[in-house]
Amino acid sequence: MNAPPLSPQMTARAAVELLTLGDELLDGRTADGNTLRVARALETLGLSLNRRTTFRDDRVAIAQAFQDVSRRADLCIVSGGLGPTTDDVTVAAMALAADVELVFDQAQWDRIVARFAPQTPPENNRRQARIPVGATALSSDVGTAPGLYLELGGCTFFLLPGVPDELQWHLDHHVVPMLAVHLAQLGLVRKRPTIYLRCVGIGESALAQRIEALPNLAWVEIGYRAGELDLELSLRGDDPEEVERFAQAVEAVGAGYVIGRGRAGLAERVVEAFRGRGLTFGAAESCTGGLLGATLTGVPGASDVFRGGIVAYANEAKTALLGVKPALLAEHGAVSETCARAMAEGARRLLKVDIAVSITGIAGPGGGTAEKPVGTVCIGVAGPHGVASVVTTHLRGARERVRQQSVARALEAARRAVLSLPILESET
Amino acid sequence: MNAPPLSPQMTARAAVELLTLGDELLDGRTADGNTLRVARALETLGLSLNRRTTFRDDRVAIAQAFQDVSRRADLCIVSGGLGPTTDDVTVAAMALAADVELVFDQAQWDRIVARFAPQTPPENNRRQARIPVGATALSSDVGTAPGLYLELGGCTFFLLPGVPDELQWHLDHHVVPMLAVHLAQLGLVRKRPTIYLRCVGIGESALAQRIEALPNLAWVEIGYRAGELDLELSLRGDDPEEVERFAQAVEAVGAGYVIGRGRAGLAERVVEAFRGRGLTFGAAESCTGGLLGATLTGVPGASDVFRGGIVAYANEAKTALLGVKPALLAEHGAVSETCARAMAEGARRLLKVDIAVSITGIAGPGGGTAEKPVGTVCIGVAGPHGVASVVTTHLRGARERVRQQSVARALEAARRAVLSLPILESET
Repeated sequence: MNAPPLSPQMTARAAVELLTLGDELLDGRTADGNTLRVARALETLGLSLNRRTTFRDDRVAIAQAFQDVSRRADLCIVSGGLGPTTDDVTVAAMALAADVELVFDQAQWDRIVARFAPQTPPENNRRQARIPVGATALSSDVGTAPGLYLELGGCTFFLLPGVPDELQWHLDHHVVPMLAVHLAQLGLVRKRPTIYLRCVGIGESALAQRIEALPNLAWVEIGYRAGELDLELSLRGDDPEEVERFAQAVEAVGAGYVIGRGRAGLAERVVEAFRGRGLTFGAAESCTGGLLGATLTGVPGASDVFRGGIVAYANEAKTALLGVKPALLAEHGAVSETCARAMAEGARRLLKVDIAVSITGIAGPGGGTAEKPVGTVCIGVAGPHGVASVVTTHLRGARERVRQQSVARALEAARRAVLSLPILESET
Repeated sequence: MNAPPLSPQMTARAAVELLTLGDELLDGRTADGNTLRVARALETLGLSLNRRTTFRDDRVAIAQAFQDVSRRADLCIVSGGLGPTTDDVTVAAMALAADVELVFDQAQWDRIVARFAPQTPPENNRRQARIPVGATALSSDVGTAPGLYLELGGCTFFLLPGVPDELQWHLDHHVVPMLAVHLAQLGLVRKRPTIYLRCVGIGESALAQRIEALPNLAWVEIGYRAGELDLELSLRGDDPEEVERFAQAVEAVGAGYVIGRGRAGLAERVVEAFRGRGLTFGAAESCTGGLLGATLTGVPGASDVFRGGIVAYANEAKTALLGVKPALLAEHGAVSETCARAMAEGARRLLKVDIAVSITGIAGPGGGTAEKPVGTVCIGVAGPHGVASVVTTHLRGARERVRQQSVARALEAARRAVLSLPILESET
C-alpha cells in the first residue's frame, strides 16, 4: 500500500476538514451518522476535525468548496455523491476544481462488472469508473463505488461513498492505514495511550463537574460519549502513566458509577457476568414494556443467559402472571418496592432462573402524583437467597429517557447482584 | 409577537444556512440530530437549507463564519454554544462579528433566577443573560439558555441552544411562528400542499423504483424518511389536485405496503386501531426479546390496549409459560408457523386479551441453517375466532434490523387483524 501524497507538515496540529455532500442531508430526510464514523476513525490516529461543511448536490458549489478547503486544510475527507445517478456530482466537481479531465479507469470498471455478474451493470454505472486525471482509485469490496484520493493545492482529499457501510469500509481499509503509514514515515507515533471507562447512572454534566474538581491535568484529554444506557469516558494523553493516574482519580470520584474499563457496553457486561458464572437471567417488566428483555437480547449470544421475561403492564397481568396479590397492589400501588419485590420473586419462580429483575414505575407523561411523580421507578432483584435488592429511583427526562434509564439501572442491579457488589445509589 | 427583521426578498428561493457549533460535534462524541430538527421545521414553511457548517468552540473562527454567512445568506439558524460555561462562545462571537458590546438583560436574568428557585443560580449562569447590542432575546420555558435573534449585513440570525429539547422548543415557539408572520406579511403563502403516506414492509429503494415507473410528475416533490419500523413518504407540490392524484397513484403501486395517510407512526396506529374498537393486545415474543412490547408501550396511552407480554426466549420458557408442547418443538422447531400459532394462542389465553401476536425467528448473526437462514421469522395472530393469521417472512439485514422489521410485521399483522384486512405479503 502506498501512502498518499500528504504534506510533511501534517502532524497532530494538521487542519483536517470533512465535507458531507447530498441534498438528503439538508432537507430533513437523513440524519448524518458519517461525521461520527470519520471523527472516530481519525481519532485512532490522533487527528481531529476542525470543520465540517454540508452541501447540496451542486457541482459548481462543491467545486468551489474543494478549492476553498484546499487553501486552509492539509487533509479533507469527503463523503457522498459517488453513486451512479446524475445527482452524484462529487467526482465531476473535483475535476472542475482541479481543472482536469475525467478518465475511464478500466480496472475499476472490471471490478464493477464482476460485482454485478452474472448480470450486466446498467450503463449509468460506467460513471463510477471515471476518475479525475491525477487521482488514484481506491477499490472497495462493498458496494460498487470506488473511492479515490488526490492532492489539490497542498491538501489531500479522500473522496468516499456516503453509504455508511461503504464509508466505514473505506475508512478501515484505505484511509486509516494510508494515513498511519504516512504519519509513521514522518516519525510521528500517532496512537496515544487511551483508557476508556464505562459509567452508569450518572449524567455527563454531573460526572464532568466531579472531574473538573480534580487537580488539573491539562495533558489528559477527556471525551464523553453518552449512549442510551451508559456513558463512555475516554482519557487520552501522551504519557501512559499520567493517563493511568488520572483514570484512577476518575474512578475514585466516580465511585459507584464507573462500572469498568474498556469499551464493552452495559448490556454486554451483564451477559458476560452471568455467562462467566453460569447463571441465568429473567425479567419482570411493567413501565418498560419489554425494553429490558429487548436490550439484553440485543447482545448476540444473550441466549446463553437470558431465559425470558414477563411483561405485566396491566395490574391484572401482574396478579395473573406474576402472582402479585391484589391486596398488595391496593395497599402499596403498582409502583412500590413491595410490588417490585413480588414481581421479581414471581418471575424468578415462573421462569426458573437464578436471578430475576423487576421494573415498575411511572414513565410519563401522565400518571404522576405528588407522592409518586413521573420518573419514580422501583427496581427489584430476586436471587437464590430471596430478594437481593430493591430500590426506588427518581429519573428525569421524557418517557423514553425514563424507560431507558430504568433498564440501565435494572441491568446494573443484576450485574451487581451477580458480582455481589453494593447496589447503585439513587440518582444524584 | 413581532416578526424579525427579515429582508423582503426572503422567499422560497431564500438562501438559508445552518451553523452547528461545538467541539462535541467534531470529535466523535455527539451525533448531530439538530440538522434534522431544523430542516423539518423550515420545511413546514417551504424553506430549505442550502448549507450547513460545523465549527469548534472557537470565538474568532465562529465570528468569521457569521460574517461570511451574512454575505451570502438571508437567514441563518445557529445552534449550540449558549450554555453557561467558557466553552460557550456563540454570543460573544456574534458580538465580535457585529462589532458591538454585550449588555446585561435583566429580564432574562430574572427568568434564570426564577428557574433555579429556591436555589440561587451559579455565578457563571450570568453569562447567559448577556446579549449583543441590537439583538432581541427569545425567552425559553425549557432550559436556562435564552435564544436571540439579530440582523447582520442583511441576514437574520437566530442563535438557539444546542440541547435538542431546547432547540426544538425555540423552533416551535419562536422561529417558525416568527418566520410565518414575516412570510405572510410579504404575501407569500409558504405552506405547500403536502400529503404524507406511511408505508410498512417495503424499503425506500424498492418503493422508489415503483414510483419512478409512474408517469413523470415533475411538479410533485417526493421525500422519503425511513424509520426503524416504517417509512414516511411526503408528496409536496403547488397544486393540491396534482398532489392528490399523485398520492392515489402511489397508493396503487404501493398497495399492501401503504398503510395510511398522515404522520402517525405504525405503533401509534396500532394503539389507535385497538382503542377505537375497544380491543386489548398481548404479545408472545422469542427472538425480539421484548421489543414488540417495548415498541408498543413507547406510545403514551398504550396502557388503554396493551395488557402485557410473554418473552419466551428459551424453548423451556415457550413450554412452561405458553404451553407450547415439547413434541411440537421437536418436530417443527421453535422457528415454525406451528410454534408461532401455539405461542399466539398461549399468550391470548394467559393474558386474557382479545388479540395476541407472536414472533419467533432467527435474528442472527448465528443460528441460521440452509433451510431456515438468518432472517427467517414466523408471526402469528390469535383472535377471538382462533388463529387469524400465521406467516413466515424472510428479512434482510443485521440482527437489530431483523428484530425491528419483525416487530413492524407483527404490529401490522395485529392492525390488519383488527381492521379485518388481508395480511401483509412476505418481503419483496
